[in-house]
Amino acid sequence: MSLLKEKYGIVFRDWSLLQAALTHSSYANEHRELHVPDYERLEFLGDAVLELNVSQYIYKKFPQLSEGQLTKLRADIVCTASFSKFCQEVGLPDFINLGNGEEKAGARQRDTLLEDVFEAFNGALYLDQGNQAVQQFLQQTVYHHIDSGEFSDENDFKTELQEELQRNGDVNIDYQVLLAEDSDQGTKFRIQLLINEKELTIGTGHSKKSAEQRAAQKYLQYLHKK
Amino acid sequence: MSLLKEKYGIVFRDWSLLQAALTHSSYANEHRELHVPDYERLEFLGDAVLELNVSQYIYKKFPQLSEGQLTKLRADIVCTASFSKFCQEVGLPDFINLGNGEEKAGARQRDTLLEDVFEAFNGALYLDQGNQAVQQFLQQTVYHHIDSGEFSDENDFKTELQEELQRNGDVNIDYQVLLAEDSDQGTKFRIQLLINEKELTIGTGHSKKSAEQRAAQKYLQYLHKK
Repeated sequence: MSLLKEKYGIVFRDWSLLQAALTHSSYANEHRELHVPDYERLEFLGDAVLELNVSQYIYKKFPQLSEGQLTKLRADIVCTASFSKFCQEVGLPDFINLGNGEEKAGARQRDTLLEDVFEAFNGALYLDQGNQAVQQFLQQTVYHHIDSGEFSDENDFKTELQEELQRNGDVNIDYQVLLAEDSDQGTKFRIQLLINEKELTIGTGHSKKSAEQRAAQKYLQYLHKK
Repeated sequence: MSLLKEKYGIVFRDWSLLQAALTHSSYANEHRELHVPDYERLEFLGDAVLELNVSQYIYKKFPQLSEGQLTKLRADIVCTASFSKFCQEVGLPDFINLGNGEEKAGARQRDTLLEDVFEAFNGALYLDQGNQAVQQFLQQTVYHHIDSGEFSDENDFKTELQEELQRNGDVNIDYQVLLAEDSDQGTKFRIQLLINEKELTIGTGHSKKSAEQRAAQKYLQYLHKK
């Protein structure tokens, strides 16, 4: 998998770990003569590896969030839909060893299976190269999605900002679209936060909501740094 | 807390982390003028720190366990009752900052609160000194409980051994008490596994069941290494 080396600079020392991470039990069962383990034990470990790294990342990135807000945000990130998406973005699905029956049943597109493989892959990388290598990999595959505000609950930062500003009386909060640009990656929005008509932070995102969130979040960060 | 230094060789670089890990929200609320954060965010992080380290430990220690068995074993270890017990064994409860109301309500003995503090303490240690320090601490506080077979489901290894041996016909499996010795730490058992009257592995534990488990487990490990 020169893909891993080119995109992420990852070269496994122990290739059997990578092979196991990409092997579904249906393949292991159909090829017992190969004695290939499936990914299930690595998935068990990788699940905890991802949970800790995502927890640590958002703990440090959002010092203003309460334990309840952190838990909610983590649940949005550490879930089947996200992990399946990350697995596809990395390009792992093409390399999964699947049994014939599961292949015909469409397992290669199944979200729960892709989630498992993403977890198992991180478990294998953790065993092979330690947590720092995992963190570098997640920087490129997961954290930038967090940075762009995709996972914040749609109203979290906006609501938080509103509550914080209106504590001392009424304030006029507005979000204006500066740009809505179509590209290969879909539409990109640039949105400006205005408070009492004063132009403040700008957020970008692939939806209006995420761009607004980002603008609100940036201004909250500014407020808390003061 | 010279206790931590003497028992575990731990000296916090950032004492405010340790202080936060030992501060309940009721205390922080009653002493707002001190601006002490409570342990809740550290508990969020520490929960994931413990989950990963326990997962990694049992993943490596029990190569013969399936993902399902690992998950079950982890759930027995990573739970309120165990974490509360570890918190007490470390001696943390005396140092928790509690509000007056909660103190009167008996919160210092409440399992869920002691669990939270154990998690928060590990979160603080992780931030202050990294995961290796956490692993050393867990070696002394958690892993030896795992090593002594306390958490294996009471029949797991014995049942597994029985199923494995009887696959090829009837086998006589017996466990005999070699020793039941009273000491300051309670009674200690030494139990020998016999298969068709042949003396095999010996297990020790603080209950007959855990000693039997350990003996069965050791013989299983021997079988799987062959």
